Amino acid sequence: MASDTTPLRQLTEAGYAASQVLAVIGKTEGNGCVNDFSRTLSQAVWEPLIPKDAITIFSGGTEGVLSPHVTFIVRSHDEATTGLVGAVGRTRDLAHSEIGTVEHANTVAETVSSMVKNLRVQLDDVRLVLVKCPLLTSEKISRIRAESKQPATNDTYESMALSRYASALGIACAMGELSPTNLASSLQSGSASGAWSAKASCSSGAELEDNHIFILASDPAAKPSGPVLRAISNPMADAIDAAAIQSILAQVQREEGEVVQAFAKAEAAPDGLIRGSRHTMGTDSDVQSTRHARAAVGGLLAGLTGDARIYVSGGAEGQGQPGGGSLCVVYRCAAKSGP
Amino acid sequence: MASDTTPLRQLTEAGYAASQVLAVIGKTEGNGCVNDFSRTLSQAVWEPLIPKDAITIFSGGTEGVLSPHVTFIVRSHDEATTGLVGAVGRTRDLAHSEIGTVEHANTVAETVSSMVKNLRVQLDDVRLVLVKCPLLTSEKISRIRAESKQPATNDTYESMALSRYASALGIACAMGELSPTNLASSLQSGSASGAWSAKASCSSGAELEDNHIFILASDPAAKPSGPVLRAISNPMADAIDAAAIQSILAQVQREEGEVVQAFAKAEAAPDGLIRGSRHTMGTDSDVQSTRHARAAVGGLLAGLTGDARIYVSGGAEGQGQPGGGSLCVVYRCAAKSGP
Amino acid sequence: MASDTTPLRQLTEAGYAASQVLAVIGKTEGNGCVNDFSRTLSQAVWEPLIPKDAITIFSGGTEGVLSPHVTFIVRSHDEATTGLVGAVGRTRDLAHSEIGTVEHANTVAETVSSMVKNLRVQLDDVRLVLVKCPLLTSEKISRIRAESKQPATNDTYESMALSRYASALGIACAMGELSPTNLASSLQSGSASGAWSAKASCSSGAELEDNHIFILASDPAAKPSGPVLRAISNPMADAIDAAAIQSILAQVQREEGEVVQAFAKAEAAPDGLIRGSRHTMGTDSDVQSTRHARAAVGGLLAGLTGDARIYVSGGAEGQGQPGGGSLCVVYRCAAKSGP
Amino acid sequence: MASDTTPLRQLTEAGYAASQVLAVIGKTEGNGCVNDFSRTLSQAVWEPLIPKDAITIFSGGTEGVLSPHVTFIVRSHDEATTGLVGAVGRTRDLAHSEIGTVEHANTVAETVSSMVKNLRVQLDDVRLVLVKCPLLTSEKISRIRAESKQPATNDTYESMALSRYASALGIACAMGELSPTNLASSLQSGSASGAWSAKASCSSGAELEDNHIFILASDPAAKPSGPVLRAISNPMADAIDAAAIQSILAQVQREEGEVVQAFAKAEAAPDGLIRGSRHTMGTDSDVQSTRHARAAVGGLLAGLTGDARIYVSGGAEGQGQPGGGSLCVVYRCAAKSGP
Repeated sequence: MASDTTPLRQLTEAGYAASQVLAVIGKTEGNGCVNDFSRTLSQAVWEPLIPKDAITIFSGGTEGVLSPHVTFIVRSHDEATTGLVGAVGRTRDLAHSEIGTVEHANTVAETVSSMVKNLRVQLDDVRLVLVKCPLLTSEKISRIRAESKQPATNDTYESMALSRYASALGIACAMGELSPTNLASSLQSGSASGAWSAKASCSSGAELEDNHIFILASDPAAKPSGPVLRAISNPMADAIDAAAIQSILAQVQREEGEVVQAFAKAEAAPDGLIRGSRHTMGTDSDVQSTRHARAAVGGLLAGLTGDARIYVSGGAEGQGQPGGGSLCVVYRCAAKSGP
Repeated sequence: MASDTTPLRQLTEAGYAASQVLAVIGKTEGNGCVNDFSRTLSQAVWEPLIPKDAITIFSGGTEGVLSPHVTFIVRSHDEATTGLVGAVGRTRDLAHSEIGTVEHANTVAETVSSMVKNLRVQLDDVRLVLVKCPLLTSEKISRIRAESKQPATNDTYESMALSRYASALGIACAMGELSPTNLASSLQSGSASGAWSAKASCSSGAELEDNHIFILASDPAAKPSGPVLRAISNPMADAIDAAAIQSILAQVQREEGEVVQAFAKAEAAPDGLIRGSRHTMGTDSDVQSTRHARAAVGGLLAGLTGDARIYVSGGAEGQGQPGGGSLCVVYRCAAKSGP
Repeated sequence: MASDTTPLRQLTEAGYAASQVLAVIGKTEGNGCVNDFSRTLSQAVWEPLIPKDAITIFSGGTEGVLSPHVTFIVRSHDEATTGLVGAVGRTRDLAHSEIGTVEHANTVAETVSSMVKNLRVQLDDVRLVLVKCPLLTSEKISRIRAESKQPATNDTYESMALSRYASALGIACAMGELSPTNLASSLQSGSASGAWSAKASCSSGAELEDNHIFILASDPAAKPSGPVLRAISNPMADAIDAAAIQSILAQVQREEGEVVQAFAKAEAAPDGLIRGSRHTMGTDSDVQSTRHARAAVGGLLAGLTGDARIYVSGGAEGQGQPGGGSLCVVYRCAAKSGP
Repeated sequence: MASDTTPLRQLTEAGYAASQVLAVIGKTEGNGCVNDFSRTLSQAVWEPLIPKDAITIFSGGTEGVLSPHVTFIVRSHDEATTGLVGAVGRTRDLAHSEIGTVEHANTVAETVSSMVKNLRVQLDDVRLVLVKCPLLTSEKISRIRAESKQPATNDTYESMALSRYASALGIACAMGELSPTNLASSLQSGSASGAWSAKASCSSGAELEDNHIFILASDPAAKPSGPVLRAISNPMADAIDAAAIQSILAQVQREEGEVVQAFAKAEAAPDGLIRGSRHTMGTDSDVQSTRHARAAVGGLLAGLTGDARIYVSGGAEGQGQPGGGSLCVVYRCAAKSGP
């Protein structure tokens, strides 16, 4: 259930206190679309349990084999790093009329840039930038119109895509993958424009007005003596890109590591084709394309990792190339040797 | 589109005439459930184009990456076998009240047994028994009641599962996988009973009243001189059983073969768990569990074969173990060497 | 939004305190089915705001024109009655294996009987018995099986219908509409059995384990001097029974009254027909029949009352005759004259 | 079933031959959205049975109480009119890139104008202009892009709305309800622009590339001696406008008439409100808003007419005022007296 907070007990059993939590990242079992109340419910039950400056990122939709779960991002017990560093942050609340626009992208870009700087890592060290961003409901659209402004779209479901895309391009700017001078035109052209970030993973929801951001990076100063955490980022080129996953898993195996968590984005190829074969995700008026995409990529990734409690999120606009999606795998190694 | 018959042109270009067609087996892009009119439409446009004793088997639902397509089963040009033999058949029309019952199972068992005998193959040679079976609509249920009889269920969607399960147990009886004396009790206990066939692949639909059957077997007499077709059957133990698929693909690779088509069944594990993790396919009232299962297994199988034009069908009651599903891969080899 | 508690302000402005609240009855905007998290969310945000012995009854599903809203049932300021009396109560928690069974029905029957007795009204005075009852999830079904017991059904969506039906027959027993000796057989035969209560309105959900009950009755002792509340109960015979609604509204008009709230149950006729015409609610595998029924009856009732903020709940098993549904309209009159 | 052609027998029994059929207008039981194969199936089975210049108009979606059915428009046996005149026509095939654009609207306008002229009726005599228009699939959108052109939208479901709106504005131009000089700007502003036709009823589908048009008008020359057909057109102002329906039915009753068929359009109010109450049709990502609207208005209209075999179509952009929809009722009177 989306209101289940028993994982907190497991956290305690693992030796961590709720006060050490930086972020709760989870998959909840709603439809992952506009009217997904499982995300709101999860946020409502989790936020009182964690520090005020911690964040939640709940991505709805556990289609197919995907299993609802939460992943805790916690501070380590002492100064010694475990191989990875992370940061969490929030942008200011967006005005409704800003959602999905250049202002949205710029706001995300600024916050991400500032967070990376504070982390004292290089852009190359960054493995994942996870964002939870707002969407437009019918009510918000009406309020925008009442102010004689234009919403980014009149379609509530489409607003989710525009919000993800603006967030992703903001990340791309911050990560040096997109020149800020090309931001507006890339946003305007839509997600087939060719502008994207390999590290971005963005999910939109009605449960917030600001943007929640989690950044994960390799710790350049890491000289861990004990077990170490590592992360590999390698985007999938399309929704059946098993090779991208297998390449990461082969590296994990070479390091005798164990997968801790996988973060993947999935989407219906905008041109309606997967390796030349027609898919029907864009013409199914009963089930939204993001649901289809999560189910399919979730099946592939769960099959290859052998684990259904993975983070697969739908709608990969600007997060990996069109039809594909960003992919980041975090793993634990006993040894020091590594890439 | 479900009304697209252009693949016939490709058949002709490949050197075959429509008169050689034994069966048209396809995935159509409807919901794969009770009100899937894409199957009926496909049947309506294809049946006039093929011989009267040929059959159609259309499985609805191309969720996720799955691509609508048809596979032609054709007679070879001469006596020389290509390595595989096949047969098509039909049972008598079922009375509405028989659908999903012991009578249904027995009718399928008899027809399959007779077809295997006529094929002159051993049970061990059989690789796949594909069945299209009828379902109950509200109208049929009302008619049954008007005759003071009991339908197998009042729920039209559930009738699809019961019809598949009865067909599968009929196949299991014919294949020696289930003793006929245990048929009634296994049917009664439901698909978690432990009775199943490793070769069965059953799909139900409103577009027929009889059962359409296709049997594929290794040709024991095959001494082909040219390229040869082979098939391997290896059920998936659960919906993320990548190993079952990879084991087949490794064999194909060892024989330097090329996959022609894959036939998989998929289902939501009845106990609500996949390797200990909770799935939500059984509690999603917006999207039926068969749709979820097709999307997930389709993603995995398409990822590993690199092909989205595969046959993945939802609802694997009695077709492989609970939560898993039967799997058969047909491939082509240049060489004579084999398993 | 399901988390919106601003109506509390309106309650205050109307001169009532939260401490006077007996019940919060609402329509929330989820799918009204098994995985409706909007009900759970509403319960989570409302329960801390009302007295401990007050109850919540949230019915999911605002299909079509229906508008999400809450109705407060409040104690009047002084001893003087307003024409209506009400009571709220809870049964004990049900064991999972009891949901939808005779035990469930009996538990509801006992609690309702006791509540009516304490209200000091005659059975004829009762206008509405509103119940929120539990359902079976995949998890609960697995736990039942682990105890070597049988769940009422393996189908989570069907468990909602069985729970409503058991609750309704419990009410029918308590109201003298069904002999307790016929309870078991009526439950066994299903909702087409002919056993039903004209006052019952039952809604099931995953957000509770007990049954929440609200009873509304005419106050036999009422001698109100000021404005008075009245309620008329008149079941709809089928889903398009405009006459049943119009008959009530004509009475309200004769008394120069004003409708305060309408409570209706709606369902897809089990025989698949509405006045001889085939409906398709029972064969739509994309949208559950309760969603269809709410949308249609909601459209009719909202059209005739001119108000979209009405309580229309789907699944009327045992709540009015098959294919119809119970209907209760509460209205306010200035004058003392009345029925 | 969408493939059921038994109504033809009833036509024959009523004394008409298939050769007299001008149009077959029906409601089919698919989802009424992009992937509604029930419309295509109905067209495939009906077109071979009627004259080559006759047309079909199938509107998908029988949500709620609506019953699948067909209405035959037939030529009368002799010169004597029955009180109504009708015409059927087709536009040229549209280029994919024209769908939903000014070219689309102009093409419809020209054909409607020409048809009205040929009918020799005044614009005021026209009661209904029913149009079936094409939509964009993923394939069509890709082909448009391959030609370096822009589709009206990238969203297949939204293309249905744009196609209906362009058709409706074309009708509005032909009927003198919109100045052609305002066509482009009205189209650009979207359906909240305030431009609409009171007679238009447009439905889009994947089953055609041209536009099928049926016009129904009062016969100015009618001096019928026997029973007479009449039609009243009176748009609903919102989705719960019972008064608009009741006003027509009162007139029918005054003329001692009997309703033959009702044609209504329905939509989710674009501002998210119905008489000030929030509806949720625009934020439901599981069920499209046109499905909700058909169910609700279908419930109201079926309730008031007592008939579930009515034509209620979803998506009323430019067909009646925003949030409302056109409404036309055809009825039969014994007497000559009339409006």
